[in-house]
Amino acid sequence: MSDRRKIRIGITQGDINGIGYEVIFKTFATPEMFDICTPVIYGSPKLASYHRKALELDVAYNAVENSEQIEDGKLNIINCNNDEVHIDLGVATKEGGLAAYEALERVVKDYQESVIDLLVTAPINKQSIQNNEFNFPGHTEYLQERLGDGEKSLMILCSNELRFAVATSHLPLREVPAAITPELLEEKLKIFNKSLIEDFDIDAPKIAVLSLNPHAGDNGLLGKEEIEVIIPSIEKMSREGILCYGPFGVDGFMGSGKYTHFDGILAMYHDQGLAPMKLLAMDDGVNFTAGLPVVRTSPAHGVAYDIAGKGIANENSFRQAIYAAIDIFRNRKNYNEARRHPLRKLYFEKRDDSNRLNLQQEDKE
Amino acid sequence: MSDRRKIRIGITQGDINGIGYEVIFKTFATPEMFDICTPVIYGSPKLASYHRKALELDVAYNAVENSEQIEDGKLNIINCNNDEVHIDLGVATKEGGLAAYEALERVVKDYQESVIDLLVTAPINKQSIQNNEFNFPGHTEYLQERLGDGEKSLMILCSNELRFAVATSHLPLREVPAAITPELLEEKLKIFNKSLIEDFDIDAPKIAVLSLNPHAGDNGLLGKEEIEVIIPSIEKMSREGILCYGPFGVDGFMGSGKYTHFDGILAMYHDQGLAPMKLLAMDDGVNFTAGLPVVRTSPAHGVAYDIAGKGIANENSFRQAIYAAIDIFRNRKNYNEARRHPLRKLYFEKRDDSNRLNLQQEDKE
Repeated sequence: MSDRRKIRIGITQGDINGIGYEVIFKTFATPEMFDICTPVIYGSPKLASYHRKALELDVAYNAVENSEQIEDGKLNIINCNNDEVHIDLGVATKEGGLAAYEALERVVKDYQESVIDLLVTAPINKQSIQNNEFNFPGHTEYLQERLGDGEKSLMILCSNELRFAVATSHLPLREVPAAITPELLEEKLKIFNKSLIEDFDIDAPKIAVLSLNPHAGDNGLLGKEEIEVIIPSIEKMSREGILCYGPFGVDGFMGSGKYTHFDGILAMYHDQGLAPMKLLAMDDGVNFTAGLPVVRTSPAHGVAYDIAGKGIANENSFRQAIYAAIDIFRNRKNYNEARRHPLRKLYFEKRDDSNRLNLQQEDKE
Repeated sequence: MSDRRKIRIGITQGDINGIGYEVIFKTFATPEMFDICTPVIYGSPKLASYHRKALELDVAYNAVENSEQIEDGKLNIINCNNDEVHIDLGVATKEGGLAAYEALERVVKDYQESVIDLLVTAPINKQSIQNNEFNFPGHTEYLQERLGDGEKSLMILCSNELRFAVATSHLPLREVPAAITPELLEEKLKIFNKSLIEDFDIDAPKIAVLSLNPHAGDNGLLGKEEIEVIIPSIEKMSREGILCYGPFGVDGFMGSGKYTHFDGILAMYHDQGLAPMKLLAMDDGVNFTAGLPVVRTSPAHGVAYDIAGKGIANENSFRQAIYAAIDIFRNRKNYNEARRHPLRKLYFEKRDDSNRLNLQQEDKE
């Protein structure tokens, strides 16, 4: 992006039978939103119009065919769907899944062509979106494949105060224990640590690692994974400079308030991290896919079929997803710019306390 | 017990190197506690004296040798341990485990001899207590064996507002999926339902069942246990008259506040239930072992070695454990007394709207 252009956010419509359009409309009903970014909805003006009418919302948008027509200060919508798509509010339909998929494919293409700078995705139905091309448990895995450049991703659920990452995410519980390997934990800890530094602008982040078994395995009485896998991984990563601690049994860790002392918490599986997180921050929780070159966030909630079209959805999580995406995008940019032309490092001789630099010493980086 | 006697609570000292004595002393520092019950600590006057001194607490107790010496209005202590036991604050020791075990054995014996009416247990260290006789993952399983009369138990964590039960409790996570069988869920739902009615005095309790897999298995995409085991069990128990619903993915269920609509929540495993519960009610959470003839509660916290002997432990959870035990004991008594001499049921004839009883019709109970 040119430095003078506003940050352009590609927003996918998500499942068209859920609350996607509602939270998008409500978020951009605040004019100040257009001061910090230019939104581009990947969806369909026809579908947007249907939701606008059903919700009786007074919202103006700018239907565009291609990237040249995108305008700052307007709620731009790029048409990605066939005009025949039908909305069936509150119901999972194959058509709805396809519409969500088409929007994703288009936003990926436009991101690759630098039309947009970052992604915020409205929730999909993980069932109805499945097709021959989309064979992933969720957005995270899809984006890792499409825009990952070979990098691994990490799902982080964050609010202003908390950042929960999960070592495994959309995996049946039965498969979780075998998936918790030293390789996985080390990979996730590295991504988490890097993201806390570069994306969240935390200098020396402290990471708590949760246990797999109840009571952190009680020294092997309730499971061996802590002793055999988790503790050795924490120790190894500590030696490599990551400030990681644990493993902590999640119930005592949350109940005692110990979690407030850490910058990030690595849970072993989906429900372990997300249940406490959503309890603490349902309305302003944001899902961030760390580790990928692209910045992508989404709200913490799902399609919410039970309240689709009723006008009662709370848009705060979606609004926070926009804010978080912009913050992360800027933090990452600042981090990289600050390090673009590093000064040559100047070393003091070891055991020389004369305060004179040794310019002969070799640069180590 | 005689109806004129105060409710006698057997209180085990728990791990002698933790915060057991501290929370007991602090709880009974309030004189009003003696109006509602007569406490009998199963431990050792010598150990109690050590803690009293370390904590600089001004507390009087009545050392007794046998049940005849127990006095109302006093903090009675029955000596269960060898006088040579050493305290090592904040450390798990074999001696400490043995002392905790001896107190348990004695309280079980006294309960069987009706010396006490109910049990409140201070936390043990689940490792150091293990010996040839005590080979259980925790109090619950031990008491089920010793005082269960063949009944199965259910661990319920409760506060004034919430009751979380766990289908499996002290089990390595790896073993959880296979343990979730129709038989287990039906057994646990029946115990839970009965306990909510008889122990918690809720007429027609509504029970939410959590899912095993993330997103409640997403219709089989993230695990089959919901479809194959949990849903059929819920349906079967519904047909048998239990008001049970679900399965719900725990993160959305907690985050959306849906949990407030239920009288009880059945989690599939320890961390799933206890993490949200302790987050919501660490300081006033109580652990209750439902399903057994004996009423037994304990505080939600553990031995808390890190703050042992420092005088900063919060006794509220222990105090609530006393209150809850008394409430449950009374509810159960009232429930049974109200049903001791049931009136003969008098039936109206079906489709007879003359308002006259048919005394010829057979009694169905």
